[in-house]
Amino acid sequence: MPGSEFQLIQSFFADPEQVTRPDLVLGIGDDCAIVAPREQSNLAISIDTLISGVHFPHNTTPDAIAYKALAVNLSDLAAMGAEPAWFTLSLTLPEVMYNDRPREQWLKQFSQSLFSLASEHNLQLIGGDTTRGPLAITIQISGYVSKENAMKRSGAKPGDLIIVTGALGAAAIGLDIALEQNEEHYTCLSEQHKQEAFRALNYPQAKIKEGLRLQSIAHSALDLSDGLVSDLGHILTASDVGAKLFLEQIPLSDTLVCLNKKKAWETALTGGDDYELCFTLAEENWSSVKQEHPEFTVIGVITAQKGLRLLDADGEELKMHTRGYDHFG
Amino acid sequence: MPGSEFQLIQSFFADPEQVTRPDLVLGIGDDCAIVAPREQSNLAISIDTLISGVHFPHNTTPDAIAYKALAVNLSDLAAMGAEPAWFTLSLTLPEVMYNDRPREQWLKQFSQSLFSLASEHNLQLIGGDTTRGPLAITIQISGYVSKENAMKRSGAKPGDLIIVTGALGAAAIGLDIALEQNEEHYTCLSEQHKQEAFRALNYPQAKIKEGLRLQSIAHSALDLSDGLVSDLGHILTASDVGAKLFLEQIPLSDTLVCLNKKKAWETALTGGDDYELCFTLAEENWSSVKQEHPEFTVIGVITAQKGLRLLDADGEELKMHTRGYDHFG
Repeated sequence: MPGSEFQLIQSFFADPEQVTRPDLVLGIGDDCAIVAPREQSNLAISIDTLISGVHFPHNTTPDAIAYKALAVNLSDLAAMGAEPAWFTLSLTLPEVMYNDRPREQWLKQFSQSLFSLASEHNLQLIGGDTTRGPLAITIQISGYVSKENAMKRSGAKPGDLIIVTGALGAAAIGLDIALEQNEEHYTCLSEQHKQEAFRALNYPQAKIKEGLRLQSIAHSALDLSDGLVSDLGHILTASDVGAKLFLEQIPLSDTLVCLNKKKAWETALTGGDDYELCFTLAEENWSSVKQEHPEFTVIGVITAQKGLRLLDADGEELKMHTRGYDHFG
Repeated sequence: MPGSEFQLIQSFFADPEQVTRPDLVLGIGDDCAIVAPREQSNLAISIDTLISGVHFPHNTTPDAIAYKALAVNLSDLAAMGAEPAWFTLSLTLPEVMYNDRPREQWLKQFSQSLFSLASEHNLQLIGGDTTRGPLAITIQISGYVSKENAMKRSGAKPGDLIIVTGALGAAAIGLDIALEQNEEHYTCLSEQHKQEAFRALNYPQAKIKEGLRLQSIAHSALDLSDGLVSDLGHILTASDVGAKLFLEQIPLSDTLVCLNKKKAWETALTGGDDYELCFTLAEENWSSVKQEHPEFTVIGVITAQKGLRLLDADGEELKMHTRGYDHFG
């Protein structure tokens, strides 16, 4: 393996076309990479692993796997208000991909997709590890974050508006389509909407620009990976506050159109993989943000009273039996 | 999973006893960790994945798995002459460990071993990810490295002495013992030597202090993970030089005593997992280093002529049919 591992890394991940950052001193090919961080910033660091059959269906294309593995890490930077800089990749590939022809096609598609997304964000691959085993991708990402204004989960204050950066629920429908499950969730959809759901699942858009815009004014933020109710619960716990969500205000993806209202809300509240940002903001800052970002939507308000209440248009509380809700209700 | 994942991380990896570094701004529990790197240094970064059944036998204890996963990353820092600072952990655990009693014992032993080694090196866990799947551990480590003197693989010069920091081959014997294979390699060993081999395999000692000592004078360095011939090949390629190794000078582990001389050399030259440093040095610097580190041994010399030659006491060249040797011979 050492020889083939080395060649593998060399041939697919030492892309001469990739971004070349001035703050990288030594890249792929030594025991460590060496970076020279800018002095006026802190560094935000996150690590995420995607496992085949757990985080993406086994039939996912290498292009989509690479995209998503990097995008979810970018999304963590976005949630802190950080600017992407470098990443490392640990790629575990099944043995058959080491020895058969398709391995090369797989790696070519994977690496092209990875470098394409990285270059959009001026992000450079600086090191990696390649091992044999069940397909898994671990990426650690590092980015610059303001010394004063990183967006933590712990800063939400009673009275803050709760805002999401886009519509929710499409990735959950995409997963149904990918797994050919819950057909009633998507049989009524147009081909275009099916594609949209599928793209939401496989090609999540990390809200880097939005995070950078918000870092000086948001009181708290995170990215929606496990579902709104579960993720918002982390903000409530970390900030020691509660919240009211106004169900009618939650921006529902067009791809939820086959579902009745209650089922659509449940999907938007508990479906994972949306990778929109959810943040809280003092009310006086909302109008200027809204002007720049009409796609952002206020969905609730932080309360001093603990717990999360889900209110319909009549002010009636919705009871949902989801794990996330049980946790924080 | 989100709920249990979160609790898992909280309960086992948010150790209040662990190292608290002043250059950590925000630790485990947010979308990213935030660090404030010292301004006078660069950062060295490395990532390594260990997979059960590939990098360690399935029957390895959680204590040893954690130790080794961190030690091999520390060893990468040692090889650059870096000082450990922070690490992130991605832990993939089989489902049964999430739901059964033994999961907790496993995690307790794993995390205690991890934090124990980390604290020896003033190294802090700053983030992680926990996923379901076949047992795998990915660690990314970061450390401070001198802006001037990081030890790269590419700096070896003709005339440099080639030096290793300790005896070779014990981990290969340890692997034979762990896998109950090649019994003739270890049946003659005393119980103490068997233990020593087993420890070499499972508890490699990262040469951090040695790396820090060497960083201002070594021309090139790496750590021995894949075997001396294969790893030294990386220095030769990166530095565009060749080397002569003097077989009689290679420090053989006492645990190779059951093997004849040629087989012992082969094991020392190609056995993996030793995690000694191999470095090159101008001859005039050797005597002072040797005085401080009598356990270091000169094993060869860098040559302008390409290729790696393995010479016995009579100056005869040893031909070995190992993959590493074929690569660079």
